[in-house]
Parts: sequence; structure tokens; C-alpha cells
Amino acid sequence: MAMSFTLPGQDGLARLGKLVLKGIEIETPVFMPVGTLGTVKGITNEQIRETGSRLILGNTYHLALRPGADLVHSLGGLHRFMNWDGAILTDSGGFQIFSLAHDCRIDDHGASFRSHIDGTFLELTPEKAVEIQEKLGSDIAMCLDECPPYGCHKEKLETAVKRSILWASRCRQAARSTEQSLFAIVQGATDLSLREFCAKKMSALDFPGYALGGFSVGETPEQMAAVLAESASFLPENKPRYLMGVGRPQDLLNGIQAGIDMFDCVMPTRNARNGTGFIPAGKIKLKNAVHRGDETPLDSECPCLACTRHTRAYLHHLFQAEEMLGPILLTIHNLTYYGTLMAQSRAAIQEGRFESFRRDCLARMNGGA
Amino acid sequence: MAMSFTLPGQDGLARLGKLVLKGIEIETPVFMPVGTLGTVKGITNEQIRETGSRLILGNTYHLALRPGADLVHSLGGLHRFMNWDGAILTDSGGFQIFSLAHDCRIDDHGASFRSHIDGTFLELTPEKAVEIQEKLGSDIAMCLDECPPYGCHKEKLETAVKRSILWASRCRQAARSTEQSLFAIVQGATDLSLREFCAKKMSALDFPGYALGGFSVGETPEQMAAVLAESASFLPENKPRYLMGVGRPQDLLNGIQAGIDMFDCVMPTRNARNGTGFIPAGKIKLKNAVHRGDETPLDSECPCLACTRHTRAYLHHLFQAEEMLGPILLTIHNLTYYGTLMAQSRAAIQEGRFESFRRDCLARMNGGA
Repeated sequence: MAMSFTLPGQDGLARLGKLVLKGIEIETPVFMPVGTLGTVKGITNEQIRETGSRLILGNTYHLALRPGADLVHSLGGLHRFMNWDGAILTDSGGFQIFSLAHDCRIDDHGASFRSHIDGTFLELTPEKAVEIQEKLGSDIAMCLDECPPYGCHKEKLETAVKRSILWASRCRQAARSTEQSLFAIVQGATDLSLREFCAKKMSALDFPGYALGGFSVGETPEQMAAVLAESASFLPENKPRYLMGVGRPQDLLNGIQAGIDMFDCVMPTRNARNGTGFIPAGKIKLKNAVHRGDETPLDSECPCLACTRHTRAYLHHLFQAEEMLGPILLTIHNLTYYGTLMAQSRAAIQEGRFESFRRDCLARMNGGA
Repeated sequence: MAMSFTLPGQDGLARLGKLVLKGIEIETPVFMPVGTLGTVKGITNEQIRETGSRLILGNTYHLALRPGADLVHSLGGLHRFMNWDGAILTDSGGFQIFSLAHDCRIDDHGASFRSHIDGTFLELTPEKAVEIQEKLGSDIAMCLDECPPYGCHKEKLETAVKRSILWASRCRQAARSTEQSLFAIVQGATDLSLREFCAKKMSALDFPGYALGGFSVGETPEQMAAVLAESASFLPENKPRYLMGVGRPQDLLNGIQAGIDMFDCVMPTRNARNGTGFIPAGKIKLKNAVHRGDETPLDSECPCLACTRHTRAYLHHLFQAEEMLGPILLTIHNLTYYGTLMAQSRAAIQEGRFESFRRDCLARMNGGA
């Protein structure tokens, strides 16, 4: 069996799960670092593992453009291409097409667009999205969906929901791999009746896992938080639940509280490259002059390389001088921070104290925004 | 004693040495990776150590501008600032001022110039160069010298040689640290009588080590090779001999043959960031399309992370996609290559077969240029 999922623990709506992907055990709730182009930007595979991550995300749109799905396939798939011995989830490519590609047109058949790299005219259909992800050989693939921007007309939102259901059904039909688990993506923005409708239609197709898409696309964190638990409740209870593209440490804690099992976001890695570090008290901008002579570590509680070996003063200098080691060390730190937050959340669920853990964490995040 | 140097072996002019800097043993001939701003660009301290390097170079001019010698001093010196437990040599800053700073004027007093970062008006004298390096706390400091461009008028060259002697004497007078060893820099370009004059004057000042400056500044490798052994012969035999800013693997082999003990150059690290790798057969440009589907390692003989874990195809992809991991892996590889070449050279000297080792290496470097 390519995938199994069990739920050994629960605390309120928060779930403690074990996801096994081809022998690789992943405890949930889990945060997946984003490795857009076959590399988590700035760090080696060994450094990824040291942050506690065994499951990373690859971006199908980016990989299909460079180096191309056929090349990756001919080189033994994405795991072998990047020599990653953990598990990989790929997105469908849809979200990136809508946000990055040029001249994008969507109808029930699929999406046509021009590459943001060289302007080549390309097409992505549900069948093609599955084919590309099977060539990449990820452990979890995602159905193509339409993710409308926040605040669009109800009619457009309904069309996107119906199209996402149609496409999920076609993806299910097209899937051939027994090595890959295909997850569906429920849309519906903050409209709970649409969320319920979409979840029920997709549940009937019996996917091995379900994602909530269309969050963190422009609505406020409060708007998301208000509908998240109910949106999650429409999903099958015994399948993994993945909240796509979310987010801030606060959002992860709230997502866990709402019964979410899996998360991904560029925030820890992208912020690291810009000099912003996450610590229990919130965010730290290492370029700020206040750190210039500060001999304390970024986070005295953190076991990572940046925090055990280096000072804020040194990190400040690296970012001021635009040295690569700044983004490298801070990427290691931020992923360790996210990984630690997930590990602590799992321990809290296990011990039946997740809600107080979550509240304590949020209270400490005075500077978090 | 801050430094000791012994010569346990010799093979022709090639020397096997042991340099001990505050308890840190460094076997020579040695190549020093360049860590301009308190970091060898793109890699962690642990990764530096894994390439075999225990002695790195810091650039005084750059560090004096960012983060500043006083700050580094107040944070415990450069070793502690960057948390490097190996040894450090700093240059005097002169060479960078002449090549990077604006409005540079030189007279016997010193050099005045504007910072290339913010245009601040600054001055560097022999005394100031020593003071800054003592604040940085490097294990080996270099005297301020004047390094004229290759091909300058003989009169200008003579002035530079005399000024370098004057400045070396003033540096010697100014040095206070018992923890730091101050090396002199012999100038004279390819003029052997000037090299001899300069070396004799500086030898009389009894420095713990001597460098050859003014090479690799515009002359051809053949012009350098033609005078290198004789230039080195003017230096005291029982002191370390350092050929500054050189260079290509071929130049290192020729330098060792000429009796040089220490080298530094940005070539392995800078080339790595541009996608050029060094292998025994010469240079490999990883951006070239020929590597696109190549599943072989960059160098099957190399024990580094890039060569044992990754393919040329993956490295090609990383450089095509401008991913940080490309420069990171190639920096690790190129420094491992340089370190291995030095280790093999030392073994060859020990076994009395350096000349045949050098010829074999040069014969393999078909693509080296």
C-alpha cells in the first residue's frame, strides 16, 4: 500500500496522526517545507532532515518548466533526481499558473497560459496535471482545481467549485500510479454551504486524502479562522486533512485546533531569505541595527545550527553584508522553529493539553504579525 | 609561542612543512579558502572543515568597513565573531583598497581613499593596518605593502618596493600582539634584482613569515613561473613562504615546485558561484546543456557532498534555475578539490615523487585554463 493513515490520538478537534508513505513515517500535524524546484532553497538535504522534516513539497508548475517532467522521469523521478530519501507531495500546478503564468485562460477543459520563464504557450488539464505528477513520482499528488481570488462574485466562486469537482473526478479517472496517492482539493472560500457541497461531492469520489484550498488568498486570518473548523468538519474523518499554503505559526496552531493534519507555506523559507526569523516571542528582523552588537543567540531555546553556534550580531552582519550564509542559517532556523512547533503540538495533543498549549504560544507571540 | 614552523620534508625545492598557530596544526603546502567578510561565501563552518581546511583568510579592508574592526574586537575577535575554531590569516587591506576603493592616493605616509560601500573618506597607514588586524585578532597578519599593477614603469615599481620596505619596518615597530604573527610582503613584480633587494631588506627585519606579493596581477602564468623559484629562493629558508592571491590548480602545483608553502585565491569559491567546477581533467561549466541528463557525479574520485550524493544533471538544473544550492554544493566541491590537491602534493613530497605527481596532474588538466 502506497499510503496509510491512522489517528492514534485526539484532543478536542485537534488530531494526532501517523501518515506512512512507502515506509516513511510522518507524524501529524506536520508542516511541509516548500522545495519549489527540487531543492528547499538554500539548504542541503541533510540540513532539511536536521530540521525534523521528512515530507517536503514540490511545485509541479515550476518543475514542469524546469527541468521538465520528462527529464525528471528519465532520471528516476524527483526523489532520485534530488536524492531526497524522505517523502514528497506535489501540488497540481494550478495555483502557480493562476498567479505566475501570463495570458491564462480557464474553461472546463483546463487552463491555457504562457510560461513566465520563456513565454512558451502551454496547457494544463486535469489529466495532464496527473500525468506530470506521475512522471515526477511524488508520494502524494494533488488534483487540479480552480482557486478563485478572495472576494470574487458568488457566481464565479460557484463556477470554480463546480469546475474543481469536475476536474477532481477527471483526475481520479486519469490516475494510473499505484505508488502515488491523489488528494482532492475542496474549494468554496469562506462560504460554508459551498464548502459543504464541494466536500460532499469529493468525498463521494473516495480520495485517500483531502485538502482545503482557497484559504490564505486574500481573506483576513480572522475570516479564515471563523470558518476553518466547520470547513474541516465536512471532510472524511479518517483521511488526512491538508490546509494548503497556510501559513503563519498562529495559523498553524489555529489550524491544528480546527482538526487540520498537514500544512505547507513558503513563509519560513522566504522570510529567512529576507532576514526575518521566527521565535516564540514573534518575528525578529535581523537587519535591524539593534542586533549589531548582540551576543545572544536568535532563540536560546532552539537546537538549530544558527542558534547553538552563532549570535544575533553575526547573523545581523551576514544580512547587512548580503552574505549567503545569512539566508542559509536563517532557513535552517525557521524550519527548525516550525518543526519544533509541530512536535510540541503533537506532544500537547497526546497529553490532552493542546488548547492551553495553543493559548500559551499565542500569548507569547507579542510581535507576531 | 603564537606560531611555530618546521620543515619535516623536502623534495627538490618542494617543501613539506608544519605550521602551528596557537595549537592548531596546519600541514603545508596549504591552500587557504577566502572568507572575505567573516564567512566563506555560501558554506557553514562545519562544511569548511569538511573540505579539509583549518586555515582561512579574512579581508581586512572589507571587515574594517563591515562590520568594523572595533565591533569585531568588542565581540571577542574574528574567530569568536564567526565562531571559527580553526586559524585565520588576514591581509593588510592594501590590495583591496588599490583595487576597490575610490579616489585612492598613496604616499609614504599611507593610503587615503573613499569606501566603495558608502563613500566615507578613510586612511590606511602601516600602523593602522596593524592596529586593525590586532583588533580582528587573526593568527597571521600581513604588513601593508604597495602592489603596483603589472607592466608599470620601472621607476614606479622601485618606489613601490622601497615604500613596501619602509612600511614593513613601520608595521614591525607598530605590532604589539604576542598572539599574532606578522608576515612581510616582498614586492618587485618579475624583476629579480628588485625581488632580491626587497627580500634581503625585509629578511633583516626578521619576520616570522614572508609572502610574495605582486604576482597574479596581470602577468601571464608563464611570466610568473619563470621567476617564481628564484623569487622564493631569496626568502629565509626556515620561515613559511606565502604566494598571495594565486591561483589556478596549475599555479599551485608550480608554486609548490618553486618552494611555496601557502596559497590563497578566490578562484575555487568565486568560480563555484558562477557554475564552474574543478576536476582532475580541468574545468567543468555546469550550466552547459551537455550536463542536462548526465547521471554521473561531477568528479567520481571526489569524496565531497556534491560528488557522493548528486549528479551533474542535478547540479546543472540548480544552476539553470539559479538555486542557491548550486553555488553551495559547488563551493564545497571546489574547496574539497583544492584541499585534496594539496593533500596529494604533501604525500608526493613525503614520498619523494612530487615532480612526477605534478607532471601527471598537469597532463590530466587538458581543459584547464
